[in-house]
Amino acid sequence: MVRRIRLRLQYDGSEYNGWQSQPTGATIQGVLQDRIFKITGERVKVAGAGRTDAGVHAIEQVAAFDMRGGLPAGAIKKALNALLPLDIRITDADETDPAFNPRYGARSKRYSYLLANMSDVPVFIHKYAWHVRVHLSMDCMNAASECLTGFHDFSSFRGAGCGAKKPFRTIYRVEIKDTAEADFLFVKFSGRFIRISIEADAFLRHMARNIVGTLVEIGRGRMQPEGMKEILRLRNRRFAGPTAPACGLFLEKISYPSFK
Amino acid sequence: MVRRIRLRLQYDGSEYNGWQSQPTGATIQGVLQDRIFKITGERVKVAGAGRTDAGVHAIEQVAAFDMRGGLPAGAIKKALNALLPLDIRITDADETDPAFNPRYGARSKRYSYLLANMSDVPVFIHKYAWHVRVHLSMDCMNAASECLTGFHDFSSFRGAGCGAKKPFRTIYRVEIKDTAEADFLFVKFSGRFIRISIEADAFLRHMARNIVGTLVEIGRGRMQPEGMKEILRLRNRRFAGPTAPACGLFLEKISYPSFK
Repeated sequence: MVRRIRLRLQYDGSEYNGWQSQPTGATIQGVLQDRIFKITGERVKVAGAGRTDAGVHAIEQVAAFDMRGGLPAGAIKKALNALLPLDIRITDADETDPAFNPRYGARSKRYSYLLANMSDVPVFIHKYAWHVRVHLSMDCMNAASECLTGFHDFSSFRGAGCGAKKPFRTIYRVEIKDTAEADFLFVKFSGRFIRISIEADAFLRHMARNIVGTLVEIGRGRMQPEGMKEILRLRNRRFAGPTAPACGLFLEKISYPSFK
Repeated sequence: MVRRIRLRLQYDGSEYNGWQSQPTGATIQGVLQDRIFKITGERVKVAGAGRTDAGVHAIEQVAAFDMRGGLPAGAIKKALNALLPLDIRITDADETDPAFNPRYGARSKRYSYLLANMSDVPVFIHKYAWHVRVHLSMDCMNAASECLTGFHDFSSFRGAGCGAKKPFRTIYRVEIKDTAEADFLFVKFSGRFIRISIEADAFLRHMARNIVGTLVEIGRGRMQPEGMKEILRLRNRRFAGPTAPACGLFLEKISYPSFK
């Protein structure tokens, strides 16, 4: 009897070569599979909802794997957290429907990107934000982002080596917010922080980072806000901005039709 | 003509062997002196207000050094931040009175210690808190901390190798607060966080960490709250609790009679 175990987990991606198992470098998937083997003696394949790039963080990733043994999900969570490095934590584990597919069953995914738009970044934050010194215009970035929502061919924001069959995706929402300070535990650091959140049915490879890279080009005045519409229309990666660094990107939330 | 330059700085101590120059391992003082030499060509000695241990962080450290060259303080700050690693940042630099002594001129110093009192620590926080799984009693810790304020012989909390001539210090305030969540940038992580802040005229070696280690022994019920008074009275390190790990400690604020 095969049981499908669903995991919710968070990770600091700084030290990992991304989600997906690679010939070299530790990956989140690889480390999880190794620890599950240590606990269950079973060689499983852990499927993740979002295949985050090297250096990208997850506030909430969802994953699933199949096993034959009878170890309860709660015990799996405890055992995994005892064996996993402290920069990967299982926040929830349960036994789920064998038809549950974390990736294809998702209704939407939300990524958030953090920009530190200031001269010097607080020491505790620099690993979790892209440092942009030039002042970014919220008006320009907001104006540019409007055309992104909806069903589009996102070829202009598709990274090389993307394995998706089709370049069409639906962005439900782009939200850009700036704040004059950031909370780090019990400390408030002043400085201009900009958070760009993108919610879509799914993402092409590097799509979130390429959209952010383009918004930053527009925010700093190197491109006009109207240029975003033209970039989308051209369906060619070379017209968009650079890929924003991985360290500022957080997989924030995966939503399912019936997954609380 | 010698000029005294005052620096305010912050650092993530995770990768450093403490403030003070050591034969082995990078130190905050050593890295600062090296970068100042690169900028000014002068071999200076940077004096810090608090000589933080290996792994201890600083939200605000104050330091000073003397130089002969005429480079303005603002330019020194910019040049240092361009050359320093991203886990050390100068937040302010100015030219000060040649009599200003960051250590002996200080009126008080405040250290804050963060405890993560929960089963699993969020991945972005584990490097900045001491993970204690057993539930800690706020009532017991608060009751125990009362006797600490005032002028006392703190020999029981004095680490081996302490260079202070006398074991007397005045604690102005001990504050213990617990919260049910912690802010990390745009994310709120739930869990019980306890922050212990200690303000004193000065600290003996490991004094803050030894007090925290003793409070945790009391909070978890291994010692009675009344035991704190007895420990103080015995003036012997072996009666106090263990030294709390460095990673949870932050040098938070140095106050001077006339330094805003």
